Amino acid sequence: MKGMILVMDGMGDRPIKELNNQTPLQAANTPNMDQMAKEGITGIMDSIAPGIRPGSDTAHLSILGYNPYEVYTGRGPFEASGVALDVIPGDIAFRCNFSTMDENGIVTDRRAGRIREGTKDLVEKLNAMVLDDYKDIKIIFKESTGHRAVLVLRGEGLSDKVSDADPKVEGKAPAEVVALDGSAEAEKTADILNKVVAKTYEMLKDHPVNLERIKNDLPPANVVIPRGAGAVPEVEPINDKYEINSACIAETGLIMGIARFAGMDVIEMEDVTGGVDTNLDNIRDTIIDQVKNSDHDFFLINIDGADEAGHDGNVKQKVEFIEKVDKVVMSELLKLEDVYIFLTADHSTPISVKNHTGDPVPILIRGPEVRTDDVEEYNEFATYKGGLCRIRGSDVMNIMMDYMNYSHKFGA
Amino acid sequence: MKGMILVMDGMGDRPIKELNNQTPLQAANTPNMDQMAKEGITGIMDSIAPGIRPGSDTAHLSILGYNPYEVYTGRGPFEASGVALDVIPGDIAFRCNFSTMDENGIVTDRRAGRIREGTKDLVEKLNAMVLDDYKDIKIIFKESTGHRAVLVLRGEGLSDKVSDADPKVEGKAPAEVVALDGSAEAEKTADILNKVVAKTYEMLKDHPVNLERIKNDLPPANVVIPRGAGAVPEVEPINDKYEINSACIAETGLIMGIARFAGMDVIEMEDVTGGVDTNLDNIRDTIIDQVKNSDHDFFLINIDGADEAGHDGNVKQKVEFIEKVDKVVMSELLKLEDVYIFLTADHSTPISVKNHTGDPVPILIRGPEVRTDDVEEYNEFATYKGGLCRIRGSDVMNIMMDYMNYSHKFGA
Repeated sequence: MKGMILVMDGMGDRPIKELNNQTPLQAANTPNMDQMAKEGITGIMDSIAPGIRPGSDTAHLSILGYNPYEVYTGRGPFEASGVALDVIPGDIAFRCNFSTMDENGIVTDRRAGRIREGTKDLVEKLNAMVLDDYKDIKIIFKESTGHRAVLVLRGEGLSDKVSDADPKVEGKAPAEVVALDGSAEAEKTADILNKVVAKTYEMLKDHPVNLERIKNDLPPANVVIPRGAGAVPEVEPINDKYEINSACIAETGLIMGIARFAGMDVIEMEDVTGGVDTNLDNIRDTIIDQVKNSDHDFFLINIDGADEAGHDGNVKQKVEFIEKVDKVVMSELLKLEDVYIFLTADHSTPISVKNHTGDPVPILIRGPEVRTDDVEEYNEFATYKGGLCRIRGSDVMNIMMDYMNYSHKFGA
Repeated sequence: MKGMILVMDGMGDRPIKELNNQTPLQAANTPNMDQMAKEGITGIMDSIAPGIRPGSDTAHLSILGYNPYEVYTGRGPFEASGVALDVIPGDIAFRCNFSTMDENGIVTDRRAGRIREGTKDLVEKLNAMVLDDYKDIKIIFKESTGHRAVLVLRGEGLSDKVSDADPKVEGKAPAEVVALDGSAEAEKTADILNKVVAKTYEMLKDHPVNLERIKNDLPPANVVIPRGAGAVPEVEPINDKYEINSACIAETGLIMGIARFAGMDVIEMEDVTGGVDTNLDNIRDTIIDQVKNSDHDFFLINIDGADEAGHDGNVKQKVEFIEKVDKVVMSELLKLEDVYIFLTADHSTPISVKNHTGDPVPILIRGPEVRTDDVEEYNEFATYKGGLCRIRGSDVMNIMMDYMNYSHKFGA
């Protein structure tokens, strides 16, 4: 028996006037999701708790059975996992921007002209960095998409209780990193970080990639500015915890990072963008291929476009994207038998708010022997009347394992 | 955007035979509450947890986002806040009765003939009290309504693990206070308390107020008997916790005490009794004035009469009071736009039980962008079918802050 949790990122919404007080999911024509609702059991879900506004990262942690209040130590470690940088417990990880700094030490462009190419070469140079005062500290950079990168500090006596180097606005020098809790470990980490920032400028200012950019009148990516410190936590791999063989099919580094953090296999896909223009055929084919031909028995799937449309406040795009997922992906999933399909969202991203809110999201479970309820449509308004009532993200894996018959009895 | 939680104290009930198996709220004619249910989203709420019988104090703490199991250390501290006695963390506070004791040390009237006047003068005298053996302990009295008062002990090495001095019945001497956990701090506090009780008799027996009462054949208020020890806990002010500017509109010292404890502004009202005879016009006008003209953006409102009728087992009064609140207060609240109104109760006080029970209470949320459900009536039976399903008191502030857009995202 196989199972999948299909997360439509940010799909939940609030009633919208121009949709006649319907939500995008309600307004969208989704015959295949509705068919699943008919065949399955439905409800609403708070991925963390009622009213709590989750990030996609904390929501997915919760849905995967981890307590985000315990394991979520900041975005750095998850970004690092997301770019396939192997981190180990104790590492301190940071999100970084390649930025442009002038000879007076003023940041003139926090995103280095949104540089798209050449950062891999810059990182290669930076990874030779050794600080004279901290020869035992390993300094690891990895490029991410665009101007983004990740920095990991590895060694003894480090702390994530340090401030950001990001000045937040242009026209200022990088902020001096300071210890946030006055500990010796934080003081040491802050000092290292300040030296790392200075050293990136030294190592990058005359790099061929930047000389070429200057020649082409583009802002050079001559400094790296870290923020969002987080200590990599120790967690039980999801495969051990639930005795499964799991894989993640996702579009964005953030979700892949969560999956790697949980020890899941991450299936790479071509041509996926995390937007409404993503290649849904590829996503569908990957899901079907994995379910039918791989040894994996549990899948976390994340499709991101509805969240992007929500952040953009684009109601038409949100409705159309949901319809497209229904037509391209759900139509095929409907043909799968002997697979438990949990269809849900990680949070609401209402068009009116353009950001995540704490509104609960619909959830449906379709598969053998579920207690089918009376609900015949899949949306925020129909599913609150369903047989699951109102559950939490932290319940999801337990319910999945119970259906898959992987659970152990607690007691006699 | 503003928000209010309107708590109809003790409004929940059970089916009553003489109401044709309806609850008082169901039987009452409440067109305005029903209209709010139509416009809003509804559900049922356990203010602490299913089946737990909350006090009004612990229920309100939970609804305000505090864990009553952590912060509720006994009724004393909340009574002290309720009479505007400024307590500080570490103080040990007690509820007290002015009582009548005869020359043999026997309590002949635990409520001193329900004395109504003169206790302020008695307290003035008592506040000069210093114990020879404990000169560093500050002893503070404050009168409350009727025969009630509050005692606060302030100083080093005190404990709330002490028994009550209240003999519970008349015809007995005040109970000797003993340490409940055998600690040196509790032994010391018990000794202080026994000496305080004896000293109140010494200081009050010939007080002019009491000589006058004896002359008029009234039982003198010549001893003060403490009970309900509680150590004043340290809590995060609600305004800091949620970044709000909050106020409380309530009738009783108990609820005002909770509000002061949480650092809320307490709005004083004339002519409110906490009973079914209260001045609802004043309450309504205060609410409307505060919402329209004050800088406060969040309100806790408590209307107490339904609870009193429940405790009295008076079904007619309970039905009529609910109808009166609907007509006088809710009709005007219905006209407020751009205000999130949460209408609920802190607990059920069923006519048949004459005390609080653990039955869940109805809740409705009305305001911009809520996901309206199919429920068109506001009562225990209609709302369990609503879109909120079943939530807890501890969810309420998180949901409110999410709607008011005051929440911060947890994660990315």
